[in-house]
Amino acid sequence: MDLLQLLNWRYATKSMDGSVVPEEKVNNILEAIRLSASSMGLQPYTVLVIKDAELRKKIRLIARNQPQIEECSHLLVFAVWDTISEKQVKAHIENIAKTRNVPIETQNEYKLRLLKIVKKNSKEQNFNWAARQVYIAFGTALIAAAAEQVDATPMEGFDNSELDKLLKLKELGLKSVTIMPLGYRDNETDWLVKFPKVRRDKNKLFINL
Amino acid sequence: MDLLQLLNWRYATKSMDGSVVPEEKVNNILEAIRLSASSMGLQPYTVLVIKDAELRKKIRLIARNQPQIEECSHLLVFAVWDTISEKQVKAHIENIAKTRNVPIETQNEYKLRLLKIVKKNSKEQNFNWAARQVYIAFGTALIAAAAEQVDATPMEGFDNSELDKLLKLKELGLKSVTIMPLGYRDNETDWLVKFPKVRRDKNKLFINL
Repeated sequence: MDLLQLLNWRYATKSMDGSVVPEEKVNNILEAIRLSASSMGLQPYTVLVIKDAELRKKIRLIARNQPQIEECSHLLVFAVWDTISEKQVKAHIENIAKTRNVPIETQNEYKLRLLKIVKKNSKEQNFNWAARQVYIAFGTALIAAAAEQVDATPMEGFDNSELDKLLKLKELGLKSVTIMPLGYRDNETDWLVKFPKVRRDKNKLFINL
Repeated sequence: MDLLQLLNWRYATKSMDGSVVPEEKVNNILEAIRLSASSMGLQPYTVLVIKDAELRKKIRLIARNQPQIEECSHLLVFAVWDTISEKQVKAHIENIAKTRNVPIETQNEYKLRLLKIVKKNSKEQNFNWAARQVYIAFGTALIAAAAEQVDATPMEGFDNSELDKLLKLKELGLKSVTIMPLGYRDNETDWLVKFPKVRRDKNKLFINL
Protein backbone atom coordinates (compact mmCIF):
# COMPACT_ATOMS: atom_id res chain seq x y z
CA MET A 1 0.00 0.00 0.00
CA ASP A 2 1.47 3.40 -0.81
CA LEU A 3 1.64 6.33 1.60
CA LEU A 4 -1.40 8.18 0.25
CA GLN A 5 -3.44 4.98 0.51
CA LEU A 6 -2.26 4.54 4.10
CA LEU A 7 -3.20 8.12 4.97
CA ASN A 8 -6.61 7.62 3.42
CA TRP A 9 -7.10 4.29 5.20
CA ARG A 10 -6.34 5.62 8.66
CA TYR A 11 -8.75 7.75 10.68
CA ALA A 12 -9.19 8.73 14.32
CA THR A 13 -10.79 5.46 15.37
CA LYS A 14 -13.64 6.05 17.80
CA SER A 15 -14.37 2.46 18.78
CA MET A 16 -12.04 -0.54 18.96
CA ASP A 17 -12.91 -4.22 19.23
CA GLY A 18 -10.49 -5.27 21.95
CA SER A 19 -8.23 -7.46 19.77
CA VAL A 20 -4.58 -7.47 20.69
CA VAL A 21 -1.99 -5.93 18.38
CA PRO A 22 0.88 -8.45 17.91
CA GLU A 23 4.15 -7.41 19.54
CA GLU A 24 5.97 -7.47 16.21
CA LYS A 25 3.64 -4.80 14.87
CA VAL A 26 3.97 -2.72 18.03
CA ASN A 27 7.75 -2.99 17.78
CA ASN A 28 7.67 -1.73 14.20
CA ILE A 29 5.56 1.24 15.28
CA LEU A 30 7.97 1.99 18.12
CA GLU A 31 10.95 1.72 15.80
CA ALA A 32 9.33 4.25 13.45
CA ILE A 33 8.90 6.59 16.43
CA ARG A 34 12.55 6.05 17.34
CA LEU A 35 13.67 6.89 13.80
CA SER A 36 11.58 10.09 13.64
CA ALA A 37 13.33 13.36 12.90
CA SER A 38 13.79 15.90 15.68
CA SER A 39 15.45 19.29 15.87
CA MET A 40 19.22 18.98 16.46
CA GLY A 41 18.58 15.23 16.73
CA LEU A 42 17.82 15.59 20.42
CA GLN A 43 14.57 13.55 20.71
CA PRO A 44 13.63 15.34 23.95
CA TYR A 45 10.89 12.91 24.92
CA THR A 46 9.97 9.49 26.25
CA VAL A 47 7.14 7.26 25.05
CA LEU A 48 5.36 5.06 27.57
CA VAL A 49 3.84 1.86 26.22
CA ILE A 50 0.97 0.81 28.47
CA LYS A 51 -0.46 -2.69 28.18
CA ASP A 52 -1.64 -2.87 31.82
CA ALA A 53 -5.45 -2.99 31.61
CA GLU A 54 -6.05 -1.66 35.13
CA LEU A 55 -3.88 1.34 34.43
CA ARG A 56 -5.65 2.02 31.14
CA LYS A 57 -8.98 1.87 32.98
CA LYS A 58 -7.76 4.62 35.30
CA ILE A 59 -6.48 6.69 32.39
CA ARG A 60 -9.85 6.45 30.63
CA LEU A 61 -11.42 8.17 33.64
CA ILE A 62 -9.16 11.21 33.25
CA ALA A 63 -9.46 11.24 29.45
CA ARG A 64 -13.10 12.16 28.88
CA ASN A 65 -14.09 8.50 29.24
CA GLN A 66 -12.90 7.74 25.73
CA PRO A 67 -13.52 3.98 25.30
CA GLN A 68 -10.59 3.30 22.95
CA ILE A 69 -8.24 3.67 25.93
CA GLU A 70 -9.67 0.43 27.30
CA GLU A 71 -10.56 -1.18 23.97
CA CYS A 72 -7.03 -0.88 22.62
CA SER A 73 -4.26 -3.32 23.53
CA HIS A 74 -1.43 -0.79 23.83
CA LEU A 75 -1.72 2.83 24.87
CA LEU A 76 1.17 5.10 23.88
CA VAL A 77 1.79 8.14 26.07
CA PHE A 78 4.02 10.78 24.48
CA ALA A 79 5.76 12.72 27.24
CA VAL A 80 8.39 15.41 26.82
CA TRP A 81 11.29 16.45 29.05
CA ASP A 82 10.04 19.13 31.39
CA THR A 83 13.43 20.81 31.24
CA ILE A 84 16.35 20.30 28.87
CA SER A 85 19.44 19.85 31.04
CA GLU A 86 23.15 20.09 30.25
CA LYS A 87 23.38 16.41 31.18
CA GLN A 88 20.87 15.45 28.49
CA VAL A 89 22.69 17.55 25.90
CA LYS A 90 25.97 15.87 26.91
CA ALA A 91 24.42 12.39 26.56
CA HIS A 92 23.22 13.35 23.08
CA ILE A 93 26.67 14.58 22.05
CA GLU A 94 28.23 11.35 23.36
CA ASN A 95 25.70 9.35 21.35
CA ILE A 96 26.59 11.28 18.17
CA ALA A 97 30.34 10.71 18.66
CA LYS A 98 29.86 7.02 19.47
CA THR A 99 27.45 6.34 16.58
CA ARG A 100 29.63 8.15 14.06
CA ASN A 101 32.82 6.75 15.57
CA VAL A 102 34.48 10.14 15.78
CA PRO A 103 36.34 11.81 18.69
CA ILE A 104 33.95 13.65 20.99
CA GLU A 105 35.95 16.85 20.50
CA THR A 106 34.71 17.02 16.91
CA GLN A 107 31.24 17.69 18.35
CA ASN A 108 32.26 20.63 20.55
CA GLU A 109 30.89 23.29 18.24
CA TYR A 110 27.57 21.47 17.89
CA LYS A 111 27.38 21.00 21.65
CA LEU A 112 27.95 24.70 22.30
CA ARG A 113 25.34 25.65 19.69
CA LEU A 114 22.77 23.33 21.23
CA LEU A 115 23.54 24.50 24.77
CA LYS A 116 23.25 28.12 23.63
CA ILE A 117 19.76 27.51 22.22
CA VAL A 118 18.62 25.61 25.29
CA LYS A 119 19.97 28.18 27.76
CA LYS A 120 18.69 31.18 25.79
CA ASN A 121 15.15 29.84 25.93
CA SER A 122 12.92 29.90 29.00
CA LYS A 123 11.81 26.62 30.53
CA GLU A 124 8.42 27.12 28.90
CA GLN A 125 9.97 27.83 25.48
CA ASN A 126 12.05 24.67 25.73
CA PHE A 127 8.96 22.71 26.70
CA ASN A 128 7.03 24.08 23.72
CA TRP A 129 9.97 23.28 21.45
CA ALA A 130 10.17 19.72 22.81
CA ALA A 131 6.41 19.31 22.43
CA ARG A 132 6.62 20.27 18.77
CA GLN A 133 9.30 17.64 18.22
CA VAL A 134 7.19 14.93 19.79
CA TYR A 135 4.39 15.77 17.36
CA ILE A 136 6.68 14.65 14.52
CA ALA A 137 7.02 11.28 16.28
CA PHE A 138 3.29 11.29 17.04
CA GLY A 139 2.40 11.79 13.36
CA THR A 140 4.96 9.20 12.33
CA ALA A 141 3.35 6.71 14.73
CA LEU A 142 -0.01 7.23 12.99
CA ILE A 143 1.54 6.35 9.64
CA ALA A 144 3.50 3.44 11.12
CA ALA A 145 0.32 2.03 12.64
CA ALA A 146 -1.46 2.32 9.28
CA ALA A 147 1.48 0.57 7.59
CA GLU A 148 0.87 -2.33 9.99
CA GLN A 149 -2.90 -2.11 9.36
CA VAL A 150 -3.30 -1.20 13.00
CA ASP A 151 -5.78 1.47 14.04
CA ALA A 152 -4.75 4.40 16.19
CA THR A 153 -6.46 7.42 17.69
CA PRO A 154 -4.49 10.61 18.21
CA MET A 155 -5.75 12.16 21.47
CA GLU A 156 -5.11 15.46 23.21
CA GLY A 157 -8.31 15.40 25.26
CA PHE A 158 -7.17 14.27 28.69
CA ASP A 159 -6.17 15.85 31.98
CA ASN A 160 -2.41 16.23 31.58
CA SER A 161 -1.62 16.98 35.19
CA GLU A 162 -3.73 14.05 36.44
CA LEU A 163 -2.02 11.71 33.99
CA ASP A 164 1.39 13.01 35.05
CA LYS A 165 0.47 12.23 38.67
CA LEU A 166 -0.89 8.77 37.86
CA LEU A 167 2.20 7.78 35.89
CA LYS A 168 4.59 9.63 38.25
CA LEU A 169 5.99 11.52 35.29
CA LYS A 170 7.24 14.47 37.31
CA GLU A 171 9.65 12.17 39.13
CA LEU A 172 10.95 11.13 35.71
CA GLY A 173 11.34 14.75 34.57
CA LEU A 174 8.52 14.30 32.05
CA LYS A 175 5.22 15.94 31.12
CA SER A 176 2.54 14.16 29.09
CA VAL A 177 1.54 15.82 25.84
CA THR A 178 -0.52 13.36 23.81
CA ILE A 179 -1.77 9.76 23.97
CA MET A 180 -2.52 7.18 21.29
CA PRO A 181 -4.40 3.90 21.71
CA LEU A 182 -3.36 1.15 19.28
CA GLY A 183 -5.90 -1.52 18.39
CA TYR A 184 -8.45 -2.50 15.78
CA ARG A 185 -11.50 -0.57 14.62
CA ASP A 186 -14.92 -1.96 15.48
CA ASN A 187 -16.83 -1.54 12.23
CA GLU A 188 -20.16 -2.20 13.96
CA THR A 189 -19.94 0.44 16.65
CA ASP A 190 -17.63 3.13 15.27
CA TRP A 191 -19.81 6.01 14.05
CA LEU A 192 -16.92 7.63 12.19
CA VAL A 193 -15.82 4.67 10.08
CA LYS A 194 -18.54 5.17 7.47
CA PHE A 195 -17.77 8.82 6.73
CA PRO A 196 -15.31 10.12 4.14
CA LYS A 197 -12.24 11.95 5.44
CA VAL A 198 -12.69 15.71 5.92
CA ARG A 199 -9.74 17.77 4.77
CA ARG A 200 -9.23 21.35 3.62
CA ASP A 201 -9.22 21.87 -0.12
CA LYS A 202 -5.77 22.06 -1.65
CA ASN A 203 -6.56 25.45 -3.14
CA LYS A 204 -6.99 26.77 0.40
CA LEU A 205 -4.19 24.82 2.07
CA PHE A 206 -1.40 25.69 -0.38
CA ILE A 207 -0.02 28.90 -1.85
CA ASN A 208 2.32 28.65 -4.84
CA LEU A 209 5.06 31.24 -5.28
CA MET B 1 10.37 0.13 0.30
CA ASP B 2 8.70 -0.21 3.71
CA LEU B 3 8.29 2.60 6.22
CA LEU B 4 11.29 1.71 8.38
CA GLN B 5 13.47 1.55 5.28
CA LEU B 6 12.17 4.99 4.23
CA LEU B 7 12.91 6.44 7.67
CA ASN B 8 16.41 4.97 7.56
CA TRP B 9 16.97 6.24 4.01
CA ARG B 10 16.04 9.83 4.76
CA TYR B 11 18.26 12.27 6.64
CA ALA B 12 18.51 16.02 7.06
CA THR B 13 20.21 16.63 3.73
CA LYS B 14 22.94 19.27 4.03
CA SER B 15 23.79 19.71 0.37
CA MET B 16 21.59 19.32 -2.70
CA ASP B 17 22.61 19.07 -6.35
CA GLY B 18 20.14 21.48 -7.90
CA SER B 19 18.07 18.91 -9.80
CA VAL B 20 14.38 19.65 -10.09
CA VAL B 21 11.81 17.48 -8.31
CA PRO B 22 9.09 16.51 -10.84
CA GLU B 23 5.71 18.13 -10.20
CA GLU B 24 4.03 14.74 -9.80
CA LYS B 25 6.29 13.92 -6.87
CA VAL B 26 5.74 17.34 -5.32
CA ASN B 27 1.99 16.90 -5.69
CA ASN B 28 2.14 13.55 -3.88
CA ILE B 29 4.09 15.16 -1.03
CA LEU B 30 1.54 17.99 -0.84
CA GLU B 31 -1.34 15.51 -0.86
CA ALA B 32 0.27 13.65 2.07
CA ILE B 33 0.47 16.97 3.93
CA ARG B 34 -3.18 17.62 3.13
CA LEU B 35 -4.20 14.20 4.46
CA SER B 36 -2.25 14.63 7.72
CA ALA B 37 -4.12 14.32 10.99
CA SER B 38 -4.79 17.43 13.06
CA SER B 39 -6.62 18.06 16.31
CA MET B 40 -10.37 18.43 15.77
CA GLY B 41 -9.58 18.15 12.05
CA LEU B 42 -8.98 21.89 11.87
CA GLN B 43 -5.67 22.01 9.94
CA PRO B 44 -4.92 25.52 11.24
CA TYR B 45 -2.12 26.23 8.80
CA THR B 46 -1.10 27.05 5.25
CA VAL B 47 1.86 25.65 3.34
CA LEU B 48 3.64 27.90 0.85
CA VAL B 49 5.35 26.15 -2.05
CA ILE B 50 8.17 28.33 -3.32
CA LYS B 51 9.77 27.59 -6.69
CA ASP B 52 10.82 31.20 -7.38
CA ALA B 53 14.64 31.15 -7.32
CA GLU B 54 15.04 34.86 -6.53
CA LEU B 55 12.76 34.51 -3.53
CA ARG B 56 14.64 31.45 -2.27
CA LYS B 57 17.90 33.39 -2.60
CA LYS B 58 16.46 36.06 -0.29
CA ILE B 59 15.21 33.43 2.16
CA ARG B 60 18.65 31.81 2.33
CA LEU B 61 20.04 35.12 3.61
CA ILE B 62 17.66 35.09 6.59
CA ALA B 63 18.12 31.37 7.21
CA ARG B 64 21.73 31.09 8.34
CA ASN B 65 22.86 30.95 4.72
CA GLN B 66 21.84 27.30 4.45
CA PRO B 67 22.62 26.33 0.84
CA GLN B 68 19.83 23.78 0.41
CA ILE B 69 17.36 26.67 0.23
CA GLU B 70 18.87 27.61 -3.12
CA GLU B 71 19.95 24.10 -4.17
CA CYS B 72 16.45 22.64 -3.79
CA SER B 73 13.78 23.06 -6.44
CA HIS B 74 10.83 23.61 -4.09
CA LEU B 75 10.91 25.21 -0.67
CA LEU B 76 7.97 24.44 1.61
CA VAL B 77 7.12 27.04 4.25
CA PHE B 78 4.84 25.76 7.02
CA ALA B 79 2.91 28.72 8.45
CA VAL B 80 0.18 28.60 11.07
CA TRP B 81 -2.82 30.82 11.63
CA ASP B 82 -1.79 33.61 13.97
CA THR B 83 -5.24 33.54 15.54
CA ILE B 84 -8.05 31.01 15.28
CA SER B 85 -11.20 32.93 14.39
CA GLU B 86 -14.87 32.04 14.60
CA LYS B 87 -14.98 32.40 10.81
CA GLN B 88 -12.32 29.70 10.39
CA VAL B 89 -14.14 27.38 12.79
CA LYS B 90 -17.35 27.98 10.85
CA ALA B 91 -15.66 27.16 7.53
CA HIS B 92 -14.36 23.92 9.05
CA ILE B 93 -17.82 22.94 10.28
CA GLU B 94 -19.29 23.68 6.83
CA ASN B 95 -16.60 21.50 5.27
CA ILE B 96 -17.47 18.62 7.63
CA ALA B 97 -21.20 18.85 6.85
CA LYS B 98 -20.59 19.12 3.10
CA THR B 99 -18.03 16.26 2.95
CA ARG B 100 -20.19 13.94 5.04
CA ASN B 101 -23.36 15.07 3.30
CA VAL B 102 -25.20 15.73 6.57
CA PRO B 103 -27.23 18.78 7.69
CA ILE B 104 -25.00 21.45 9.25
CA GLU B 105 -27.14 21.36 12.41
CA THR B 106 -25.76 17.88 13.17
CA GLN B 107 -22.38 19.56 13.75
CA ASN B 108 -23.62 22.14 16.27
CA GLU B 109 -22.27 20.31 19.31
CA TYR B 110 -18.87 19.85 17.69
CA LYS B 111 -18.80 23.51 16.65
CA LEU B 112 -19.57 24.67 20.19
CA ARG B 113 -16.91 22.36 21.64
CA LEU B 114 -14.29 23.64 19.21
CA LEU B 115 -15.26 27.28 19.79
CA LYS B 116 -15.08 26.72 23.54
CA ILE B 117 -11.50 25.40 23.30
CA VAL B 118 -10.40 28.18 20.99
CA LYS B 119 -11.98 30.95 23.09
CA LYS B 120 -10.75 29.53 26.41
CA ASN B 121 -7.15 29.62 25.20
CA SER B 122 -5.06 32.77 24.88
CA LYS B 123 -3.87 33.83 21.43
CA GLU B 124 -0.44 32.43 22.31
CA GLN B 125 -1.88 29.10 23.48
CA ASN B 126 -3.83 28.76 20.23
CA PHE B 127 -0.69 29.57 18.26
CA ASN B 128 1.29 26.90 20.15
CA TRP B 129 -1.53 24.42 19.60
CA ALA B 130 -1.63 25.20 15.87
CA ALA B 131 2.17 24.95 15.67
CA ARG B 132 2.05 21.45 17.17
CA GLN B 133 -0.49 20.40 14.55
CA VAL B 134 1.68 21.63 11.72
CA TYR B 135 4.53 19.48 13.03
CA ILE B 136 2.41 16.41 12.27
CA ALA B 137 2.14 17.61 8.67
CA PHE B 138 5.84 18.54 8.69
CA GLY B 139 6.84 15.02 9.81
CA THR B 140 4.45 13.50 7.30
CA ALA B 141 6.06 15.55 4.53
CA LEU B 142 9.48 14.08 5.44
CA ILE B 143 8.08 10.56 5.04
CA ALA B 144 6.20 11.48 1.86
CA ALA B 145 9.38 12.92 0.35
CA ALA B 146 11.27 9.72 1.22
CA ALA B 147 8.48 7.66 -0.34
CA GLU B 148 9.12 9.60 -3.56
CA GLN B 149 12.90 9.19 -3.10
CA VAL B 150 13.12 12.93 -2.75
CA ASP B 151 15.43 14.48 -0.19
CA ALA B 152 14.19 17.00 2.33
CA THR B 153 15.71 19.02 5.14
CA PRO B 154 13.58 19.94 8.15
CA MET B 155 14.65 23.45 9.22
CA GLU B 156 13.80 25.64 12.18
CA GLY B 157 16.92 27.80 11.93
CA PHE B 158 15.70 30.97 10.25
CA ASP B 159 14.51 34.41 11.25
CA ASN B 160 10.76 33.90 11.55
CA SER B 161 9.81 37.56 11.69
CA GLU B 162 11.99 38.44 8.70
CA LEU B 163 10.48 35.58 6.71
CA ASP B 164 6.97 36.68 7.69
CA LYS B 165 7.78 40.16 6.40
CA LEU B 166 9.33 38.90 3.16
CA LEU B 167 6.35 36.65 2.37
CA LYS B 168 3.79 39.18 3.72
CA LEU B 169 2.44 36.47 6.01
CA LYS B 170 0.98 38.86 8.57
CA GLU B 171 -1.39 40.20 5.91
CA LEU B 172 -2.51 36.61 5.36
CA GLY B 173 -3.02 36.02 9.11
CA LEU B 174 -0.09 33.58 9.16
CA LYS B 175 3.17 33.06 11.04
CA SER B 176 6.01 30.91 9.70
CA VAL B 177 7.05 28.00 11.88
CA THR B 178 9.30 25.71 9.84
CA ILE B 179 10.69 25.37 6.33
CA MET B 180 11.66 22.37 4.21
CA PRO B 181 13.67 22.36 0.97
CA LEU B 182 12.82 19.49 -1.42
CA GLY B 183 15.52 18.32 -3.81
CA TYR B 184 18.22 15.71 -4.29
CA ARG B 185 21.23 14.99 -2.09
CA ASP B 186 24.66 15.79 -3.47
CA ASN B 187 26.68 12.73 -2.48
CA GLU B 188 29.96 14.49 -3.28
CA THR B 189 29.52 17.53 -1.09
CA ASP B 190 27.15 16.48 1.70
CA TRP B 191 29.25 15.82 4.81
CA LEU B 192 26.35 14.10 6.59
CA VAL B 193 25.48 11.52 3.95
CA LYS B 194 28.27 9.14 4.96
CA PHE B 195 27.37 8.93 8.65
CA PRO B 196 24.96 6.46 10.24
CA LYS B 197 21.76 7.88 11.72
CA VAL B 198 22.02 8.95 15.37
CA ARG B 199 19.02 8.00 17.48
CA ARG B 200 18.40 7.37 21.17
CA ASP B 201 18.51 3.76 22.27
CA LYS B 202 15.11 2.12 22.55
CA ASN B 203 15.83 1.22 26.17
CA LYS B 204 16.05 4.92 26.94
CA LEU B 205 13.28 6.15 24.66
CA PHE B 206 10.54 3.74 25.77
CA ILE B 207 9.08 2.70 29.12
CA ASN B 208 6.86 -0.39 29.25
CA LEU B 209 4.02 -0.53 31.76
